[in-house]
Order: sequence, then structure tokens, then C-alpha cells
Amino acid sequence: MLRDEFDFITKIKPKIAHQPSLKKGIGDDAAVFEGNSMFDELICMDTMVEGVHFTKETMAPFMIGYKALAVNISDIAAMGGVPTYYLVSIAIPNDWDEKELKEIYEGMKSLGDKYSVDLIGGDTVSSKQGLIITVTVCGKIQKESSLYRSNASPGDFVFLIGEVGGSAAGLELLLKHGLHYPYSNQEKQLIEAHQYPIPQIEAGKLLASSKQRISLNDISDGLASEANEIAEASNVTLYIDYDKIPRNSFIETYSEEKQKQWILFGGEDYQLIGTIPKAFYSEINQTFNQNGIQFTIIGEVSSGDAEVYLINNHAKQILPKKGFNHFNKGE
Amino acid sequence: MLRDEFDFITKIKPKIAHQPSLKKGIGDDAAVFEGNSMFDELICMDTMVEGVHFTKETMAPFMIGYKALAVNISDIAAMGGVPTYYLVSIAIPNDWDEKELKEIYEGMKSLGDKYSVDLIGGDTVSSKQGLIITVTVCGKIQKESSLYRSNASPGDFVFLIGEVGGSAAGLELLLKHGLHYPYSNQEKQLIEAHQYPIPQIEAGKLLASSKQRISLNDISDGLASEANEIAEASNVTLYIDYDKIPRNSFIETYSEEKQKQWILFGGEDYQLIGTIPKAFYSEINQTFNQNGIQFTIIGEVSSGDAEVYLINNHAKQILPKKGFNHFNKGE
Repeated sequence: MLRDEFDFITKIKPKIAHQPSLKKGIGDDAAVFEGNSMFDELICMDTMVEGVHFTKETMAPFMIGYKALAVNISDIAAMGGVPTYYLVSIAIPNDWDEKELKEIYEGMKSLGDKYSVDLIGGDTVSSKQGLIITVTVCGKIQKESSLYRSNASPGDFVFLIGEVGGSAAGLELLLKHGLHYPYSNQEKQLIEAHQYPIPQIEAGKLLASSKQRISLNDISDGLASEANEIAEASNVTLYIDYDKIPRNSFIETYSEEKQKQWILFGGEDYQLIGTIPKAFYSEINQTFNQNGIQFTIIGEVSSGDAEVYLINNHAKQILPKKGFNHFNKGE
Repeated sequence: MLRDEFDFITKIKPKIAHQPSLKKGIGDDAAVFEGNSMFDELICMDTMVEGVHFTKETMAPFMIGYKALAVNISDIAAMGGVPTYYLVSIAIPNDWDEKELKEIYEGMKSLGDKYSVDLIGGDTVSSKQGLIITVTVCGKIQKESSLYRSNASPGDFVFLIGEVGGSAAGLELLLKHGLHYPYSNQEKQLIEAHQYPIPQIEAGKLLASSKQRISLNDISDGLASEANEIAEASNVTLYIDYDKIPRNSFIETYSEEKQKQWILFGGEDYQLIGTIPKAFYSEINQTFNQNGIQFTIIGEVSSGDAEVYLINNHAKQILPKKGFNHFNKGE
């Protein structure tokens, strides 16, 4: 068992690259390598495990497929790219039948069709226990447009695309009552945020086409964790103003403590967090306004150690790089 | 649980492609899409499951890593391509420690370094039971050189690169005696054929550079299964002469019945089977001779139903599309 995933990845990360076409290997949302004269190639890979990332009580097969593809498309969005192809490997235990498996692929297809992403390969194998679905997504990005985590500089604004907190709140409801409970409309919105995250492809494209120095990360492991990744990759300090973080309006009836947990550490909203040069703010703000995409300044970048501070009630405290594992609370 | 993997793949295979750059989707060893002006991109994905494809009694961690990458590189070889990058997703159960996991990545790195293939991404997650490792390999191929399964035509020769039967024999020994038994030198050779398959990248490159109409498939699921895939994709009949199939010399002391099972249905030798126009035989035979690669004509292609016949002792019989699942004999 791994004690520290980040530490392990550092250990296995290659020191040198053999292929001269490699532009970005391990350490960002997707890898980047030389494509043709106009575009570079993007590729990323994510796995969802039954009992770790979902259960039959939290997700119907269609949703599992949808989400397995969505989280990968979100990684392409976080590079400013456009998804093109996907491959699926699925390890199937005895207690899943062919109808359910077909629904998983239909869930992927529904999202794939929306973004014109084609299924082009994969594998099907047996699992001893628990369904495991691994998706690889390829994408493309106009040359010199990749939005790396390492692009943040002192003086930049920190921004958020969309709003956070909904997915974790929805999951808490699902874990408590299951998939078929008579939820209120408000609760249904939260559950949908968990089951059907919307990859921010349009936002990523708008940012990439600006050709500015922008850092970007998608929020899979929680805002705290992803902000820390930008701070580490760019070797800067991020200050985030808690009150400025747009929260899913449907969580506002819950306790402030719960909201804070969901907003900062809940994750799985698959929104985007990033930094832009201040001089570029009014232009990009106008672009997002025109396109009807929620764009909010939530903090600033300073020189200093690779850390993130949260400013709340006139106090600042370190925002640790930790997510919140809902299925294995003891670990 | 899937009753028929091939049938299921047919059901989920997309009817149309959104991306105009796609040249070959599901249905060959790797997918092919438009790259730059000289090369096209290749991509494939394979999964190995503890208890299904390996156990701690048959494979040390280093070997598991080596083989997980090798089987994917073999798919690139079967398209005539050159591997460039790989991504790894690993689902880790509690009974695997960090030292073992590091050895898995070292096994991949040892092979990756040999073929100049760079690790560029992936994922690490928890598994409820059994280690599951999924590898995606990217590659490239000179334009108009892909060796599709659908390229076989009546009148072609059927050929085999290398020799078969060793891997299945080695696995039978491992399942009987485990990893640490005092094996004879002959037995060690068979075990090595199972643990360290050698992807036929050089052979694939030689075939691709000929720019001839060649079909090619790597032998993962057994010669019978892979020959049937060529017959189906090309809609032709293959006749294979059993006595002409080169067998691993170390299996020759076993019963003829066992040898036949291993040669036809054992699989995992990761050799290449394919077809070439007869007129091209002497040229390609000379090329392989000069490069010291075993190249053998084992049969012919005829018009007719998409089937494979085995000729043995002056009799011909249908060679069914079935592999041999060593770990789940009851299924």
C-alpha cells in the first residue's frame, strides 16, 4: 500500500527523456508532445475503482461511464486543449452483467458524442473484486498554448472557473441515502454535480487562445490540493480569500463547517483553478462574460515558499495539500 | 460478467467517427490517427490483473512491470510501428508494499530504456483486491505503412516471426512449482519465455518499411485466435500447416498433445503472425535472414469463409478462435 502517492510519483518520475518530441511529461494534468506544424498532442489517463471512487449505491452504470470519461476530458481542459480520442480498459468482476457494462459504454458515448471524442481502443479483462475502469484520452492543443501548472508568477491573480462544493455535498447525500431516495430538488442538484461533472473545455480553450502566461489545474482532489500543485510547480506562494470562492448555491443551507470542508477539500467538481497576469484581467474577464462562463478572482500570487495560504475572517493560515477520501475515512 | 468478449466489443464499437484524422479505430492491435507530414500516431492499451494474468507465485514485481509494457510494445510492433511513450495506471491492494511497486516501475523502465520509450503519465489508485496494471503505449509509423489485419488476400503466404509454445509451457511449470523452485536450464528457458517476452519491434519495422500489402497480428491470445482475427478482418480463409509452425525447442520433450495445446492455443509468446504476397517472399526472406530474425512460411490464404483450417497428418480441420485461460480453467 502506498503511504504517499505524491512522494511515490516523484520516485518513479523519469529523470531523462529519450524522445526529443516530449514537451511535458509527468507533473501536469496531461502530457504534451510534438504533433504536426499547428498542434501538439495531449494525453492523460485516469482510473475509477468500485468501492473507492464509486459504488452501485452512488452511481448507476451510465453515470460511471459518463464520469470516467468526463474526468479525463477535464484534464485535457486544464491544459487548454480539445479532446479527440479515448481508449477504455475495464476489469469486470462476476457481479456485473453485460447490460450494466453496455450502459457504462453508453454513458461514455453520450459525453463523447457531445465533444466529438471517438472511442478507438482498449481492453476488457476479469477482476477478482470490484469493477475498475481506466480511460486514456488524447487531445490536441495549438502550439505554444499549453497552460502549465508551472506558469504562475508573483503578482498574478488566482482565478476560479465555475463554483465548487457541490460534488462533495452530493456524494455525502448518496452515501447516506443511496441512489433511489426521494431527494428534494435542491439535493438532486448536488447529486447531479457529483454524478455528471461538466468538463470546462470551453473555458480552457478561451484561456489557451489568449496566448498569455496562464497556469491552470482542474479540481479533482479539492481546491486546496490543486492550488498547492500550482504553488509547487511554479515555486510561488498563493493567497486565497475564502469569502471570494464561488460556492454551489445549493450547499448554502448546510453548516458553515461542512461547506468549508466541501469547498476546500471535497474535490470532484472538475472546475478549473489558475493564475493570470493582472494586466490581462479586464480582457479575459470580458471574454468570459461574453461567453457566459463564471470567472472569479479568488486570490493573488506572491514570491515565497511553495505554499498556499487561506485568508478568512482577517486571519491567514496554511491551506494543506490534502484531499478528502470519502470512501476510506479511516485512512 | 462477459460471456463473449469479442461479441461485446462488436456491440460497443462506434459506428461513426467524429474526428476526421482517425485512420483505424477499434479492431486492430493499435489505433492509428493522422500525425504530422511523415508519421501517423499509434496508440494501444492493455491490462494485466493479479490472479488472472499473473500471481506472486508466477511473476516477481520487476517481471510484472516488464511484461505489462512488453505486451503493449508488441501491439505497436504488430502495426509495424515504433513505440514512443507510455502511461501507467495501477490499482494497488493492501498486500503490496512500496518496494514491490517500485520494482514494477523498474521492470517497465528497463524495457522502456531499451526501446527509448518514455513514461509520461498515469494514475495510482487503491484496489479492493488484486493488483491491476493498465498500460497505454503511444507509437509512430511512417505514413501508408500500417500493417492492418485486414490486408490479407487470397494467394498470400501466411508467415510467423519467431517460434511459439514456450510461454504457455513456462506458465504451466510456474503454476505447478512456483517462482523459486530449482528448475533445470531447459525449464528456465521456458519460464523466461513467459516472464520476459521480447516484442518484435525490429521485425515489424522491416515489414512496414517494405511498403508491401502485409497483414500482421501479435500472438497474445494464441496462434489459433490471432490467425482467426486476420481471417475475419480480411474475410478470407487461412490454411496453416501444423508441422511448419516453429516451436520453442525446449518444449520438444513434452507430450505431442501438450505441445499442440501450447503452440496453437497457449499464447503470450508475443511473436507475430501475418500474410505477404507470394511474389514478395524471396525479398522479405532475404531481409530477415540478413537481420538474423526467424521468418517462416506456415501456410496460405484462400478465398472463402472467414475461417482458419489446420492441416495436420494429411487431414484438415477447423482451427477455432479460442484461447486457453490458464488461471480460470473452469470458465
